[in-house]
Amino acid sequence: MRKGLFITVEGGEGAGKTTMLKRMEAWLENEGYPAIVTREPGGIRIAEQIRAIVLDRENVAMDARTEALLYAAARRQHLAEKVLPALEAGKIVLCDRFVDSSLAYQGYARGLGIDEVWQINRFAIQDAIPDLTLYFDLEPELGLKRIMENASREINRLDLEAIDFHRRVREGYRLLAERYPERIFTIAADQPPEDVFRNVQEVITAIISRRP
Amino acid sequence: MRKGLFITVEGGEGAGKTTMLKRMEAWLENEGYPAIVTREPGGIRIAEQIRAIVLDRENVAMDARTEALLYAAARRQHLAEKVLPALEAGKIVLCDRFVDSSLAYQGYARGLGIDEVWQINRFAIQDAIPDLTLYFDLEPELGLKRIMENASREINRLDLEAIDFHRRVREGYRLLAERYPERIFTIAADQPPEDVFRNVQEVITAIISRRP
Repeated sequence: MRKGLFITVEGGEGAGKTTMLKRMEAWLENEGYPAIVTREPGGIRIAEQIRAIVLDRENVAMDARTEALLYAAARRQHLAEKVLPALEAGKIVLCDRFVDSSLAYQGYARGLGIDEVWQINRFAIQDAIPDLTLYFDLEPELGLKRIMENASREINRLDLEAIDFHRRVREGYRLLAERYPERIFTIAADQPPEDVFRNVQEVITAIISRRP
Repeated sequence: MRKGLFITVEGGEGAGKTTMLKRMEAWLENEGYPAIVTREPGGIRIAEQIRAIVLDRENVAMDARTEALLYAAARRQHLAEKVLPALEAGKIVLCDRFVDSSLAYQGYARGLGIDEVWQINRFAIQDAIPDLTLYFDLEPELGLKRIMENASREINRLDLEAIDFHRRVREGYRLLAERYPERIFTIAADQPPEDVFRNVQEVITAIISRRP
């Protein structure tokens, strides 16, 4: 029996995950629940080494399946060294992206297949399924606009090509939310931040109160 | 339809795989069949980078599942960049260890489960199942003795502990040979080298003659 609570946060670029994670952590700590925010590779040496191979710009020949296996390997090590010990210690672990990112990006949007990518991730995570996954749903155009505003530059042709990809990512997430309704909770990320945060608080409060 | 022929060679330490592979390659070339001998990571940059993480002595915290995923990732890249192009070019690819090594070592002997390790390897290799797998079967004690003779040192306590592990590896290989009788051919590696090589030639000749 898991002592802590494992919450993952998912969504496309510009959906506001990072900002919300900081607020969630501060709020939970304030309520007396020890919480940590993490994301792969999360400072875990082996996971960082694996990620460095994925990000190495010289590795143009990397096969999509090699990449998916490397993400799963980094996920396993981050889970074993950071997430599971924190859950054992009774903490609330807030993880910025987890298995659903691989399913939506590699499995669906890149076309490897959700079920195929799930096979290797099931091996990687075993029974460490999140207790709750918050999916921040946002139109890709709006997410991209937010990122552009931060970077203060115009949207170019490459960005527009990327939009197509990010539309598929969103479709992938929506399929997952339909498939796992008991675990994935969709939050409309185009609302004002205060409303988004209130949604988040309601869902997490409900999960905490349901625990034995 | 694959143009070349994909032959993998499996077995414990000291079973004579390397010597036989050299003889196989020379014999096939002499018979007019272009052949290559390879083994993962096989000089493939990405696969070498992955293997370096597995072999890094600082990585004592590496989880067994992380390791299995990394082997599968290196396998995928070596396959994509080296084995598949050679098969496409009509060559006979002689691969020193392949998926059965992961199944026998990680899956069976280390206890992760043959079926579990097969899941991630199926993702890694897709339909690149070997046309033929030669399993060089040898008592671990005999294999170890051969290695020791080369290294000219005595067998110590650690070697004897290792014997137990290598007995399980052998059990694993034997289970696989029972499970895939149409693919895995067992060769008694305690015979004189000339007899072993004659066995190898017979099996490969039969496979070649069966091809359309």
